[in-house]
Amino acid sequence: MEKYCRQVFYYETDKMAIVHNANYLRIFEEARLYFMDRIGVSYPLVEEAGILIPQVDAYVRYHQTLKYGDEFYVEVRLVEFNGARMKYQYEIHRASDDELTASGFTSHCFVDEEKRLPKNLKRILPEAFEKMKAAIEN
Amino acid sequence: MEKYCRQVFYYETDKMAIVHNANYLRIFEEARLYFMDRIGVSYPLVEEAGILIPQVDAYVRYHQTLKYGDEFYVEVRLVEFNGARMKYQYEIHRASDDELTASGFTSHCFVDEEKRLPKNLKRILPEAFEKMKAAIEN
Amino acid sequence: MEKYCRQVFYYETDKMAIVHNANYLRIFEEARLYFMDRIGVSYPLVEEAGILIPQVDAYVRYHQTLKYGDEFYVEVRLVEFNGARMKYQYEIHRASDDELTASGFTSHCFVDEEKRLPKNLKRILPEAFEKMKAAIEN
Amino acid sequence: MEKYCRQVFYYETDKMAIVHNANYLRIFEEARLYFMDRIGVSYPLVEEAGILIPQVDAYVRYHQTLKYGDEFYVEVRLVEFNGARMKYQYEIHRASDDELTASGFTSHCFVDEEKRLPKNLKRILPEAFEKMKAAIEN
Repeated sequence: MEKYCRQVFYYETDKMAIVHNANYLRIFEEARLYFMDRIGVSYPLVEEAGILIPQVDAYVRYHQTLKYGDEFYVEVRLVEFNGARMKYQYEIHRASDDELTASGFTSHCFVDEEKRLPKNLKRILPEAFEKMKAAIEN
Repeated sequence: MEKYCRQVFYYETDKMAIVHNANYLRIFEEARLYFMDRIGVSYPLVEEAGILIPQVDAYVRYHQTLKYGDEFYVEVRLVEFNGARMKYQYEIHRASDDELTASGFTSHCFVDEEKRLPKNLKRILPEAFEKMKAAIEN
Repeated sequence: MEKYCRQVFYYETDKMAIVHNANYLRIFEEARLYFMDRIGVSYPLVEEAGILIPQVDAYVRYHQTLKYGDEFYVEVRLVEFNGARMKYQYEIHRASDDELTASGFTSHCFVDEEKRLPKNLKRILPEAFEKMKAAIEN
Repeated sequence: MEKYCRQVFYYETDKMAIVHNANYLRIFEEARLYFMDRIGVSYPLVEEAGILIPQVDAYVRYHQTLKYGDEFYVEVRLVEFNGARMKYQYEIHRASDDELTASGFTSHCFVDEEKRLPKNLKRILPEAFEKMKAAIEN
């Protein structure tokens, strides 16, 4: 598990004065790429090796709202990974009171950048594969 | 069911040259508000009556990619509604070949704008309630 | 001059309940690419020919606000073009009362997609060059 | 002058694989609100006092591109302020080589949240007024 923190930006709010629902998928992405970076798997390097990691599906549950200026932290866990696919779980908490504001998951597959055919990280980036493998949390 | 159409904007793409995953929740929102407008329930009027309709949860499955300039249509269905909550299902199709590019659902509740307490559309906007009721598709 | 129209999306608003200031550059882009399409210069085809058209500078003046649901139209004019650079002017009007809500300009250059070196449309896409030339308005 | 830093998010890129032009206005906003916070003028508190600070105009010049993962810093300066209006200048630099990637300015006015009539910070938040006044850099 890694913990990613920042404050809500003004432009992330909508006319309800809360973070717009679509921005939670952006925050999940920030947290996920931070997670990969923290375990030593740089996503820019993965892409340079010719691998893209598009999203397969995503789920968000909105528990509480976040407002402009709120500090929050995301607890992000890699819960599945086999070199060809992976799945993350997320919990977004307001920092001031630790309140759970949103939770969810995203699934991803590994593909080549040309034809978007399946790729396995094990063959292309074996070191990254091992780091990911070691970071799985059940 | 209502059908909402438009083209992909350039700024909706990311460095994979496809519509970024978070933008699908924005497209769902466009389609949903279009649906309400089409059945005669104007969302601006709902908000003027003091009701907000935040998102409770959301799911997206990404089947195919959409690229800049692609025309697409969203088939949007109201599948649950009881005045206090509602649920929509979405299918996004590429217009050129009718390929399903994404599908999913969103759930919503009705709350007052001050304290975010539950509200029932039946009491506050009975006419809108009836129109929504009649538009449910199972 | 071409006229590009649509409604404000919910997610374009911020907590001031108006279209967020950064979204005007997105609307300019929509209008600009619509303009090119209307005069017969498809931007996807330009990119397929290996040309990118990054923005060099941009100016926006915010006269009035736009709210969720407002219909607006953009009057977009190509005011300069020489094959290597171009400049557009924009006026965004609220449709209900023709009020000018924003105005501005953007400048662009033509570069190759690899090294981002200057390119001239005249040599690579002479037909597109002529169409652009003919569309200049002073 | 204050210095605001962060990394480029994946979703900020477009199909040219660079930060999309509209996102620079968002980055300007992040830097500006960080500036106000740093000099002791909390924007959430300003809004609670019933004052909004919409944008009057904005200019961006794009010198170099920023890519996903790039660290950057924004040098933000308050160059004009009289209680009713203010103007900021921005320089965005890539952190790795200090290269100037974008520069620009934004102007703002102070209005009340109801009728959007002009307001003067001096009368409503005199302490914030003095802090702003002291932070002007010519």
